[in-house]
Amino acid sequence: MIRVACRQLAPRLGDLPANRELTASAIGAAAAGGADVVVLPELATSGYVFESREEAAAVAVTPSHPLFEEWASAAGRAVVVGGFCERGEDGRLYNSAAVVDRGGVRVVYRKTHLWDGEKLLFTPGDRPPPVVPTAAGPVGVLICYDLEFPEMTRTLALAGAHLVAAPVNWPLVDRPEGERPPEVVIAMAAARVNRMVIACCDRSGTERGQEWTAGTTIVGADGWVLAEGAHATADVDLDHAASKALNPRNDLFRDRRPSLYTTLHR
Amino acid sequence: MIRVACRQLAPRLGDLPANRELTASAIGAAAAGGADVVVLPELATSGYVFESREEAAAVAVTPSHPLFEEWASAAGRAVVVGGFCERGEDGRLYNSAAVVDRGGVRVVYRKTHLWDGEKLLFTPGDRPPPVVPTAAGPVGVLICYDLEFPEMTRTLALAGAHLVAAPVNWPLVDRPEGERPPEVVIAMAAARVNRMVIACCDRSGTERGQEWTAGTTIVGADGWVLAEGAHATADVDLDHAASKALNPRNDLFRDRRPSLYTTLHR
Repeated sequence: MIRVACRQLAPRLGDLPANRELTASAIGAAAAGGADVVVLPELATSGYVFESREEAAAVAVTPSHPLFEEWASAAGRAVVVGGFCERGEDGRLYNSAAVVDRGGVRVVYRKTHLWDGEKLLFTPGDRPPPVVPTAAGPVGVLICYDLEFPEMTRTLALAGAHLVAAPVNWPLVDRPEGERPPEVVIAMAAARVNRMVIACCDRSGTERGQEWTAGTTIVGADGWVLAEGAHATADVDLDHAASKALNPRNDLFRDRRPSLYTTLHR
Repeated sequence: MIRVACRQLAPRLGDLPANRELTASAIGAAAAGGADVVVLPELATSGYVFESREEAAAVAVTPSHPLFEEWASAAGRAVVVGGFCERGEDGRLYNSAAVVDRGGVRVVYRKTHLWDGEKLLFTPGDRPPPVVPTAAGPVGVLICYDLEFPEMTRTLALAGAHLVAAPVNWPLVDRPEGERPPEVVIAMAAARVNRMVIACCDRSGTERGQEWTAGTTIVGADGWVLAEGAHATADVDLDHAASKALNPRNDLFRDRRPSLYTTLHR
């Protein structure tokens, strides 16, 4: 069993020092609670609603920035997956997520499906989402809108992810009364058809009038919600995600018919 | 607007004459209710829980069987999508669905992802699911377990389906209290990420001790349930499914990154 903990928080727009403190403190609290994996929101170090590229650039950091050492230190033996505003070696800005453990920054993933105004600020990543071997097992990473492409969750599952950690900033959208946020329904389906845990860490607060869903949710490998809310925490058996067998004759992966799926990569 | 009507029913196992009457009558009732598209369950003409291939073969029919003329006649101006046990020209058995309108059998789709004991009876289809131009717009067809492969719903959406008609027989499985059947959650997500209507027509009754979910559900193109129950009927605007734009900068299809999805067809 491993303990997955999301820490929904409200970054302060453009205030890197405040967000360093806020994120390191959230990681420390989750680690103190026994978390093996800590998930933070998208763009947790910077905030989201930038009015210009310059504004975003002012809080962009590289993976060698000391804030990640603070994350590693706060995490102890845990693995952290959190979003940040990245300045690339090419000077471009990326909406990225770092996987950090006591060894430092293990991997940086750059969001490949950009949402709305992000397209004016960020360059989309050009590499598939990573699956990172960690002390807590193989962890895949997606960022927010990436999750709405079933190709992405499937790609991570086929690459061996047992847990997907997804930093998100879900803008609040209408939904029928009594329904979960649509992004959660999508995560539930993706978890079940791939038999993997999906932990979505959303943000709270408002920024320049933008309201957020604050819909942090951890979905189990059978597709049911295990925990939700600002400090959503769940103990999960990732061994269950290692087998895709449904019964002696059916297996979620072996039953696939890749020769029929040829239009998906065109 | 078009009216989509599912007709959940309980076929009588192995009794083709009874099921001909049952299905034609259900189609007639839906057509009388103004349906433009009528969806029937999987294997509606035969029942499901066969104990041998011989038993299934005894109720297998070809697409030239007169029962489809009865369907066409009962349908009037409607289009029917219903499951049947097919005997191929090769003598093999297929778990198939026919798309029938006043012109007769338009297309037969053979289920490509077989569930459990079906593997002992049926040969899996080797062709992708079809999108059939009909008086009610482009209709895609899947059968039951096919739906659990997001590649299949995506393939139909990319091929232009605005509505997916899915004959199903959902064996009853455990689910947490208050939750919808897992297959419905999967259909909701598939409808939303592809912006298309998905109409799942389940069956009722029990057969040799097998209980069914009786979970017939029509999901709208935004992913929310429009109608459920034995005679689920919904009026849907398929023009909404024609555009995949989410806002001026995002489009469910144009935002795809096919060059990153290359592992899906291997």
